[in-house]
Amino acid sequence: MSNGLVPTAIVAIAAAPRTRRTNYPEPFASRVAGREKRPLGDVFGLSAFGVNLTRLAPGAISALRHAHSKQDEFVYILAGRPLLRTDHGETQLAPGMCAGFRAGSGDAHHLINRTSDDVLYLEIGDRTPGDAVTYPDDDIAAVLDPEGRWRFARKDGTPY
Amino acid sequence: MSNGLVPTAIVAIAAAPRTRRTNYPEPFASRVAGREKRPLGDVFGLSAFGVNLTRLAPGAISALRHAHSKQDEFVYILAGRPLLRTDHGETQLAPGMCAGFRAGSGDAHHLINRTSDDVLYLEIGDRTPGDAVTYPDDDIAAVLDPEGRWRFARKDGTPY
Repeated sequence: MSNGLVPTAIVAIAAAPRTRRTNYPEPFASRVAGREKRPLGDVFGLSAFGVNLTRLAPGAISALRHAHSKQDEFVYILAGRPLLRTDHGETQLAPGMCAGFRAGSGDAHHLINRTSDDVLYLEIGDRTPGDAVTYPDDDIAAVLDPEGRWRFARKDGTPY
Repeated sequence: MSNGLVPTAIVAIAAAPRTRRTNYPEPFASRVAGREKRPLGDVFGLSAFGVNLTRLAPGAISALRHAHSKQDEFVYILAGRPLLRTDHGETQLAPGMCAGFRAGSGDAHHLINRTSDDVLYLEIGDRTPGDAVTYPDDDIAAVLDPEGRWRFARKDGTPY
């Protein structure tokens, strides 16, 4: 049953994938080419946090390894065996495992699918304003443009 | 690997269950006696939202049917087949299905396990302050006590 505006419930994997795959410039965009995100929370009009059902094809990464200043993140593995990379090394994940990434910890993270099978997981992130993201492994920085939008540049400020 | 303060990742079902099962007074507490919540986000020090791995034994409900004024909620079914009850009727859920409950919609919801198998799901809720909860089906209301804490009373204000 539906209230006419949003569905009451959906089969998550049947949700529409995000059409814009990434905002990263090259050469980083190619590294997440095998990543597919289905926004689930948006389907129900949620605004305080986002929930994505995300698939990583073999070889894909979840994102550049990064840390958020103000937004918490959480992942729950539904299928497949990704590696979680943080400042503390690599941790093997498996279905039924979860990890949380506290805002402001400074510990950067991402998932890598080094297997020959897809990885499927839920990712949750809040939408606290004023968030900033840092990328310790890559020459990329998010900078505010004059219109107040985040743009990617090199760490010395020069554009891609 | 761990950073010494929080684990990097955990097996969700191995997380400690919440020891205090419910704040409801009787006769409502008994209706959620078969509900077990494992707080997962708290394990990682997350503060912007909570993530619970929740199990409903046969006959249990997730909560009294309720609506939040300011906090969004989201559920993802991992195992079992609960019924979702909203103002619009009942919807059969199954593993891989999800539902979101937008703050302020006024549409009250809960899950019921009418099967003979356990139901297991992830529930996410943000922690926007100033939230209020309403219960259309039951004679219960959450009221602020003089110390600013939420207490349950009957809808006419008399205590349980």
